Amino acid sequence: MVDPANTVGIPVNPTPLLKDELDIVIPTIRNLDFLEMWRPFLQPYHLIIVQDGDPTKKIHVPEGYDYELYNRNDINRILGPKASCISFKDSACRCFGYMVSKKKYIFTIDDDCFVAKDPSGKAVNALEQHIKNLLCPSTPLFFNTLYDPYREGADFVRGYPFSLREGVSTAVSHGLWLNIPDYDAPTQLVKPKERNTRYVDAVMTIPKGTLFPMCGMNLAFDRDLIGPAIIVQSNLSLSLNVHTMYFGLMGDSQPIGRYDDMWAGWCIKVICDHLGLGVKTGLPYIYHSKASNPFVNLKKEYKGIFWQEEIIPFFQNAKLSKEATTVQQCYIELSKMVKEKLSSLDPYFDKLADAMVTWIEAWDELNPPAAAAANGKA
Amino acid sequence: MVDPANTVGIPVNPTPLLKDELDIVIPTIRNLDFLEMWRPFLQPYHLIIVQDGDPTKKIHVPEGYDYELYNRNDINRILGPKASCISFKDSACRCFGYMVSKKKYIFTIDDDCFVAKDPSGKAVNALEQHIKNLLCPSTPLFFNTLYDPYREGADFVRGYPFSLREGVSTAVSHGLWLNIPDYDAPTQLVKPKERNTRYVDAVMTIPKGTLFPMCGMNLAFDRDLIGPAIIVQSNLSLSLNVHTMYFGLMGDSQPIGRYDDMWAGWCIKVICDHLGLGVKTGLPYIYHSKASNPFVNLKKEYKGIFWQEEIIPFFQNAKLSKEATTVQQCYIELSKMVKEKLSSLDPYFDKLADAMVTWIEAWDELNPPAAAAANGKA
Repeated sequence: MVDPANTVGIPVNPTPLLKDELDIVIPTIRNLDFLEMWRPFLQPYHLIIVQDGDPTKKIHVPEGYDYELYNRNDINRILGPKASCISFKDSACRCFGYMVSKKKYIFTIDDDCFVAKDPSGKAVNALEQHIKNLLCPSTPLFFNTLYDPYREGADFVRGYPFSLREGVSTAVSHGLWLNIPDYDAPTQLVKPKERNTRYVDAVMTIPKGTLFPMCGMNLAFDRDLIGPAIIVQSNLSLSLNVHTMYFGLMGDSQPIGRYDDMWAGWCIKVICDHLGLGVKTGLPYIYHSKASNPFVNLKKEYKGIFWQEEIIPFFQNAKLSKEATTVQQCYIELSKMVKEKLSSLDPYFDKLADAMVTWIEAWDELNPPAAAAANGKA
Repeated sequence: MVDPANTVGIPVNPTPLLKDELDIVIPTIRNLDFLEMWRPFLQPYHLIIVQDGDPTKKIHVPEGYDYELYNRNDINRILGPKASCISFKDSACRCFGYMVSKKKYIFTIDDDCFVAKDPSGKAVNALEQHIKNLLCPSTPLFFNTLYDPYREGADFVRGYPFSLREGVSTAVSHGLWLNIPDYDAPTQLVKPKERNTRYVDAVMTIPKGTLFPMCGMNLAFDRDLIGPAIIVQSNLSLSLNVHTMYFGLMGDSQPIGRYDDMWAGWCIKVICDHLGLGVKTGLPYIYHSKASNPFVNLKKEYKGIFWQEEIIPFFQNAKLSKEATTVQQCYIELSKMVKEKLSSLDPYFDKLADAMVTWIEAWDELNPPAAAAANGKA
């Protein structure tokens, strides 16, 4: 566990970082053999497996991992009618795992993601890097040309305002992918052989006011982040950041797929910008082994490809009110805007706006405010 | 000249890229021996040397370089009373070189910058990378997580709107520095031994609405960029982008130094954002050999260190009018805002606002609109 690149004052010791404060959420339809390769890095942590598709299928989890597993029957049983907000036959189902977790941090990873190697050939401990990203501040208000100023060997450059050097709390750490890049179906079709081999040794904050395409393949976040913007409010506002990490309605009986993480990313960025929280992207890389079928993807995506031309300007122009001081208030406000502004695009957005509210209700049911506040204070 | 990383359709041939369309501007007070190391990359290009300090001193330029050299006497003779807008005893004097150039592109470099090596040990042709950056579009309207989408082996990721994939014209390419980082005096004092050894293999667009600290040490730009926003206007508006690349009043008889490039960068970014032009940062690296004296720097910078706390919010909130459709109009509008909003900070900003106007006038004198329009069309 000795880590020469330790830059954020994380104690170096043989106990894995945040072992008892982080859950790993994995959506899957198959045996989790990919975890064998991750054993040195992930085995100490607790897994929450969300089994998609046929609930009678038995998923094999490698020996030695500590886990809980939920299939569709479990989700329906636990949430009752509110289970409607959890997608089926789409990796969007993963967000059920965020809801049942009781930990402060979540790392979510797809089952076709393997351990990447850095340019020196060393295996990348993706989770450790995510934790570093989450534990050190973000700098969304001004760009630092030497990337993450908190990293060892870097700092704020000349001309960076001193008043902004404390940064803001980091809510999300978005990791990247070597080998198969996260392309849409048209790009996959046009460039079937393209592989990402460029290891960019950087972590950076996505500036305030800038949207980004958030991929759910290799993602970590602070599940109950209490930023300064929130803590100044009453105890009632000890709100959970994961409220925003809702992956929408995708897959089975929905007109769209493969936009779950995008949707969550757009919502989250607008809310983080409003509340003064940070989103980082860059390191860590994982090795993405398997390109999904571009023809199948095209079918799932094609509506999203033209809808996004209107959805993105919608989010770029979304202005939350001053009264929205908690993540939950922001999210409810955003759901109303979705209903008002995007329903004309397709009735689907009306359903999605309702599902956003159901998600919050289901969340509150599983995470009663008292417990949440206690968690928040812990 | 065979270049495997050629990604922007630049013809690969033995003639150096843009040989007759680019000038290299170097501000200096000493012999230019540093050009020996740059010979393989820079010798084919024309140099404009702006000699700062004592005009009677003879500057030696290595054999074989084609150059013109201007000292303070030349500047005073050429500009007459308008020479007041060109700083003395500060590298801000370099912008005189931008004004006398008649080329479309400028690369400016400090005389303590040497050829960097990439991680494979290969010498970095900084100018070639700057040219690639300038010739391929920028993407300021949405963040691409795999960095420059136009680079070989990269593209736009899933969720990136197709309507934005053409990008916008790139006005500025901001390169970085290995070895001595560009720190302010307080950071130099606190971290005297810090060296930048991290080679981040990325070029990225600085998003719209985000300011950055532009360093003039290793910088290239399109001197007479005609963006789509401008070309739709009349011929009169074939305006020169370099109008904004004014490095302000610094050094001798001014209350501040080392903010020349920062000032230019803030102005430029606001104008590029308004006109829909792009600013890139990242590659290429140069090797910065010599840290300037932090005590001397502190004396030059200290007013800037607190002024910037007000200047940056000023630029973050600066909204140019719809009527400002050319770079020149934007710049004049900005100078009025500086006078109105920053003069209360210090009378210096009143002088600076006037100098911004003088700069435009001096520019127009040396670059009559007819010639500029012809250049623009060429």
